[in-house]
Amino acid sequence: MVEPRVTEALGKPIVGPLDPYFFEVADATRELLRLVFGTRNETTLVIPGTGSSGMETAVANFVEPDSKFAVFANGYFCDRLSEMGARQGARVVRLEKPWGEVFAYEEAAEFVRREKPAVVAFVHAETSTGALQDIRAITKAAREVDALAIADTVTSLGALQVGVDEAGIDIAYSCSQKGLSAPPGLSPFTASPRAMERLKTRKTPMHHWYLDLKLLRDYYDGRKYHHTVSTPLFYALHESLRLIQEEGLQNRFDRHLRNHLALVRGLETLGLEMHVAEGHRIPNVNTPRVPGGVEDVKVRKRLLEKHGIEIAGGFGPLAGKIFRIGLMGPLANESSVSLFLDAFRDAIRN
Amino acid sequence: MVEPRVTEALGKPIVGPLDPYFFEVADATRELLRLVFGTRNETTLVIPGTGSSGMETAVANFVEPDSKFAVFANGYFCDRLSEMGARQGARVVRLEKPWGEVFAYEEAAEFVRREKPAVVAFVHAETSTGALQDIRAITKAAREVDALAIADTVTSLGALQVGVDEAGIDIAYSCSQKGLSAPPGLSPFTASPRAMERLKTRKTPMHHWYLDLKLLRDYYDGRKYHHTVSTPLFYALHESLRLIQEEGLQNRFDRHLRNHLALVRGLETLGLEMHVAEGHRIPNVNTPRVPGGVEDVKVRKRLLEKHGIEIAGGFGPLAGKIFRIGLMGPLANESSVSLFLDAFRDAIRN
Repeated sequence: MVEPRVTEALGKPIVGPLDPYFFEVADATRELLRLVFGTRNETTLVIPGTGSSGMETAVANFVEPDSKFAVFANGYFCDRLSEMGARQGARVVRLEKPWGEVFAYEEAAEFVRREKPAVVAFVHAETSTGALQDIRAITKAAREVDALAIADTVTSLGALQVGVDEAGIDIAYSCSQKGLSAPPGLSPFTASPRAMERLKTRKTPMHHWYLDLKLLRDYYDGRKYHHTVSTPLFYALHESLRLIQEEGLQNRFDRHLRNHLALVRGLETLGLEMHVAEGHRIPNVNTPRVPGGVEDVKVRKRLLEKHGIEIAGGFGPLAGKIFRIGLMGPLANESSVSLFLDAFRDAIRN
Repeated sequence: MVEPRVTEALGKPIVGPLDPYFFEVADATRELLRLVFGTRNETTLVIPGTGSSGMETAVANFVEPDSKFAVFANGYFCDRLSEMGARQGARVVRLEKPWGEVFAYEEAAEFVRREKPAVVAFVHAETSTGALQDIRAITKAAREVDALAIADTVTSLGALQVGVDEAGIDIAYSCSQKGLSAPPGLSPFTASPRAMERLKTRKTPMHHWYLDLKLLRDYYDGRKYHHTVSTPLFYALHESLRLIQEEGLQNRFDRHLRNHLALVRGLETLGLEMHVAEGHRIPNVNTPRVPGGVEDVKVRKRLLEKHGIEIAGGFGPLAGKIFRIGLMGPLANESSVSLFLDAFRDAIRN
């Protein structure tokens, strides 16, 4: 769901990729992204594609052929990270956990000490499971072997604290449509000075041109033509970031957490059990287990057809086992929660 | 410039990447793209990025490492094609011409017979020079050595005849914002059955994931999740294609040509000389030479500040030597031409 002010911004006059007005909007957008990422990274910019293009920007620029790339694998998007690493010709090693569990510092440290990767990657908030990874558990381990740490913040950015600088993340990417509540199509991206130094010493040429971070920096900072930016998407992202700034970052995080807790309470009252252990749950993607004797498809169908509410099911190893209930942006409010719980009660009992 | 109906379409409710309504719009969009491309290619779809992402989709999928890639080089975007080919590890060979000239069949055939490339690439309408390449001159030569032919139709699609099937193009890509007059951010793409057969026999793995054509086809045709499509851009592209269909393709081409000819007549009356020879000019990008004693920057500044009209200058070897006057989509009409000529007369004389 997108706020009316954001939809309105989409319709503003389109300008060219080198128009001074565009760079004004771009600079303001980048500054607001530094705020939500919690970073002072100069290389904070917008990749011209969806969240997956941000993921590929991270992997294609920083993971070199024949280097070792360690992936913390506990859900769907970790597999995508592994796949992209393999396509770069890297030696991909994985620490596996069941979908829905997270990694503690000790096991992360033991893994990276053994493997000594050049780069590690993990998913902060894994939308396929509802599990929230403690960032420091991984970045601290990575730093001990001097590996760069890539964090997927596709689901978390704008809905909960990421804190790139404080948490020691080297590279993070996200999408425009989840916690930031803008239309999809752009990927906010940030890289630390340490990561950019490492990029300078890259030994092999980049296969990618569209997602080449050096060319993208030359465009944003050097005003050197690269691609024809989609100004409507930029205007909308800028407006959604302004809304976040107006609400206040901490207020926004608190609102997501408060409504998440109310939703969990309500689900537990209905007799459901959460798939992810307390303390490791993503506030904006809630994943109760499907109760015994209940068919998830039937419940979702009734919710959609009778109540006009769309929730997702589990997939992969969690197919048929969990519901995935998004609660973010403008929808993370008390009346949405109680409306949903009423409808859900009806749907699981009929 | 974008029609009000297109801007309005941007604001329609956003749906998810696997929503049946999205695939309804996507299927209709793909069918309309087949119409403007002039093709029955099943693999006609939309790449989730700008025109340059379409270019990289063509090169990254079809140009293999160590294979020979022949580029017809007579402008800015041919250099970009060469650069992308080199990044794939291909042996790039180029037939060079001064910016503004085009290739005849005989020289194209002589070149490809000598080089025997696996793939050739050329730019149909080169926006940096105003020159229009005869497509058959190149596709006929390519076919003689069984090479695949990639056509850059970024500037031409929707404004003039491309005719993919009749002209024997194997792979073509474009952008959403020029001849199609939608906002930028998407890249229409088409590949022939012959090209897709060739892709199946590819020997080396793809480095690219976001632009992997097989994954994109699995998404569009197999409804298998790949990326989160930007529905606002899709709605707008669909609406702009409907406008083109309503006008009629031939009517639209005629309108562009008629107004191009009127503009050229007017420019010649003012004493200017066109940079590109008659018969090889792009109707929607007009490139008169900057007359002796006239400073192009001054003219463009006065046009913008006094008349609110933006035209582009030359760059690369044509910097300061030509003006580049866009005349496309809703702007290709009689009153725009006469308004422009009046303003331009004032600007070059003051």
